[in-house]
Amino acid sequence: MNVIKFGGSSLASGEQLKKVLKIILDDPNRKIVVVSAPGKRSSKDKKVTDLLISLGTAALQGQDIEEKIEKVLSRYRIIAEELELDSMIIKEIKANLLLLVNGDKIASDYYLDAFKASGEDNNAKLIAAYFNKEGLPARYVNPREAGLYVTEEPGNAQILAESYTNLYELRKIKEIIIFPGFFGYTKSGKICTFSRGGSDITGAILANGVQASLYENFTDVDAIYVANPSVVTNPCGIKELTYREMRELSYAGFSVLHDEALYPAFKQGIPVQIKNTNNPKAPGTIILKKRQLTNQEVVGIASSNGFCSIYIEKYLMNREIGFGRRVLEILEDQKVSYEHMPSGIDDLTIILRENQLSTEGHHLLVSRLKNELSADSVVVESNLALIMIVGEGMRQNSGTMSKAATALTRNHINIEMVNQGASEVSFMFGISADQEEQAIKALYHAFFE
Amino acid sequence: MNVIKFGGSSLASGEQLKKVLKIILDDPNRKIVVVSAPGKRSSKDKKVTDLLISLGTAALQGQDIEEKIEKVLSRYRIIAEELELDSMIIKEIKANLLLLVNGDKIASDYYLDAFKASGEDNNAKLIAAYFNKEGLPARYVNPREAGLYVTEEPGNAQILAESYTNLYELRKIKEIIIFPGFFGYTKSGKICTFSRGGSDITGAILANGVQASLYENFTDVDAIYVANPSVVTNPCGIKELTYREMRELSYAGFSVLHDEALYPAFKQGIPVQIKNTNNPKAPGTIILKKRQLTNQEVVGIASSNGFCSIYIEKYLMNREIGFGRRVLEILEDQKVSYEHMPSGIDDLTIILRENQLSTEGHHLLVSRLKNELSADSVVVESNLALIMIVGEGMRQNSGTMSKAATALTRNHINIEMVNQGASEVSFMFGISADQEEQAIKALYHAFFE
Repeated sequence: MNVIKFGGSSLASGEQLKKVLKIILDDPNRKIVVVSAPGKRSSKDKKVTDLLISLGTAALQGQDIEEKIEKVLSRYRIIAEELELDSMIIKEIKANLLLLVNGDKIASDYYLDAFKASGEDNNAKLIAAYFNKEGLPARYVNPREAGLYVTEEPGNAQILAESYTNLYELRKIKEIIIFPGFFGYTKSGKICTFSRGGSDITGAILANGVQASLYENFTDVDAIYVANPSVVTNPCGIKELTYREMRELSYAGFSVLHDEALYPAFKQGIPVQIKNTNNPKAPGTIILKKRQLTNQEVVGIASSNGFCSIYIEKYLMNREIGFGRRVLEILEDQKVSYEHMPSGIDDLTIILRENQLSTEGHHLLVSRLKNELSADSVVVESNLALIMIVGEGMRQNSGTMSKAATALTRNHINIEMVNQGASEVSFMFGISADQEEQAIKALYHAFFE
Repeated sequence: MNVIKFGGSSLASGEQLKKVLKIILDDPNRKIVVVSAPGKRSSKDKKVTDLLISLGTAALQGQDIEEKIEKVLSRYRIIAEELELDSMIIKEIKANLLLLVNGDKIASDYYLDAFKASGEDNNAKLIAAYFNKEGLPARYVNPREAGLYVTEEPGNAQILAESYTNLYELRKIKEIIIFPGFFGYTKSGKICTFSRGGSDITGAILANGVQASLYENFTDVDAIYVANPSVVTNPCGIKELTYREMRELSYAGFSVLHDEALYPAFKQGIPVQIKNTNNPKAPGTIILKKRQLTNQEVVGIASSNGFCSIYIEKYLMNREIGFGRRVLEILEDQKVSYEHMPSGIDDLTIILRENQLSTEGHHLLVSRLKNELSADSVVVESNLALIMIVGEGMRQNSGTMSKAATALTRNHINIEMVNQGASEVSFMFGISADQEEQAIKALYHAFFE
């Protein structure tokens, strides 16, 4: 039994829904379908979820909402018309939205969460109606009915463990299940949405609960690429990826999937298959617990900018027991989290995300480090990019570091920092953010061309 | 005015002292001579300091000491006879040793420190007598007379700041000053010795106090070498080295000098010249605050083994504020100091000196890390060597890392860890200790041949 999840762009129009139906019909294992709200049809379009947030916010503030309701409805109406669905479904969606408008405005975050969740919820109802009309017995299942319970944290709900046992019961349903992603119910019956990657989370939770043999995640790319396609022209796709590789890559900005969203599936060892709704024949990318190692030492290259470094120098630092701990205490006290802390004899550098520091916070942190640690000097450098090179194969291949460093050097990219040794499946370079694209291209060339 | 210090092997015999006299006569700037106790004449010989510790320990325990006193005296007697000195000096030394034997045995560490210090002290008297006999006006100056005051820490005395002002007065003395290294006096008049590199410390303190233009440190090698001469055959010598380079190199086992001993000279910006007593024409190595950069990016390669790594893995570690700080707290609580702490997303490695951990301490540390941090896994790997590559020039040269990594890879040396980014003048590789020599050879070949 497969759980199969479609993202917003896969469900943005009637034409897209026809592709979805075909995909479901193509494989009888595809039993549980998790759906998002309709996404953008073009780059200038708006997502239904954004229209709903706008509607909910206006309703909360007692503004006129007629036009905003119409905007949401029209998206569903266009889809229903393309698919020649009965107008009943649009009436049902309208009734639902009006019910939400009249909800309890005192708990404003719950109020808004209910609007956000309705994008998925109403889309699930529409898609079930469409499948049934086309002769595929399908059933809309609401998360409350399925027992998908979450914590009382609007916008950041966490699954309650008992849900998994409840969800196992979904296996008994004969029809294709159409399940709305992105939200669950609290024990007191309120809707709460998940954080980023919300529908991915629902899919992963369902895959875990029903003990699926595969979790298929349909999106709008043919595969996860070995490097950012907006930097490298037509990069190769990754066929197989381990969970660990996926996680290391996602750290430095691989954006196809939010890796933590997939954790419930990973925990059960369920493979995750990334596929393209618009090109379902493409092999896609499969994410596994273990993979066969090929000759290829590196599986992907990711990068992220917006980092800075704080360099602390103090003579005889390495004799001072507790120096590193005190540095980290000051950071924690200033509510700054660090990424890396390479240390020398008399010096130590902290790499952190720059956006954590206001100008004021920046000055305060530097002066605290300097004064409380009696440092000889504290110097901040901005505009750092981190390049992550990932691959299980590098454990078997001793030349990966040398190959990467040589590729950067040949392209006149100065290596400000190297971090290797924490993870077995990755290492990291720090370079000037101005050279980020150039570095990705150089590394792509060295490892994949 | 130069301060000039001679190590034990430069003063081990009459023949050596003749070289020393010639060196002093060669340059009229050589005004203050700091001397060690007579060292080994051959690899099987014993240092006078060790004979004195043996004598002091026996005296403390009330054992028969006649033979042990004779052993010490005979070393001075042989030197005196070679130099045709009056036998008065030997009588004086014997009287001094008997006085020490009858010292206050209750404070046993001070008692032993006085024995240790007498090696330098009596040698200074002997050398002053020799110089005078040869017609060079010389004067033995005792640290108490010069006002060299230290803390009350036998074996680990620290200089008191007021000493520097007192020592400046030495400039007024017309004769060549012969000053015993290795010890000072507490304010209550007790002898206390310095830690490792004791005579080097005295020399550096005097250079600072008298504001010398040069501190000459005479030892038994032609220069500080770019790599360990017991690993690389006939390595090149280093002509110029900055303080920072020296410090980075000494961290990983450059043993010619104990770098912290030189700090009092460095603090005043006084250059330190390393020379060979047995080959004073050789240019030696000069250690400066700043140096002219040549094309050569790397100035030296050092290594040290006996490290281990503790690898900690925990899913979502990078989301956990304070994780690194808590790791360091546990280390501190177990009285373990760490060298490096490279971190990834879900993992963190601690590099530390293995000899800090007993088998029991090792198990306790691992179980505390695992339990108190709820880590998914904690794995220890032993037998790690750290290779340090040092050079101010690498700031100007972006290819150093690539060159070093390539050299290691070509020699099939697996790079377990890279630490670059803390110091501007060095980076570090972690490799298996079994490959340490091979790695040094490969890097020497890449950078110096």
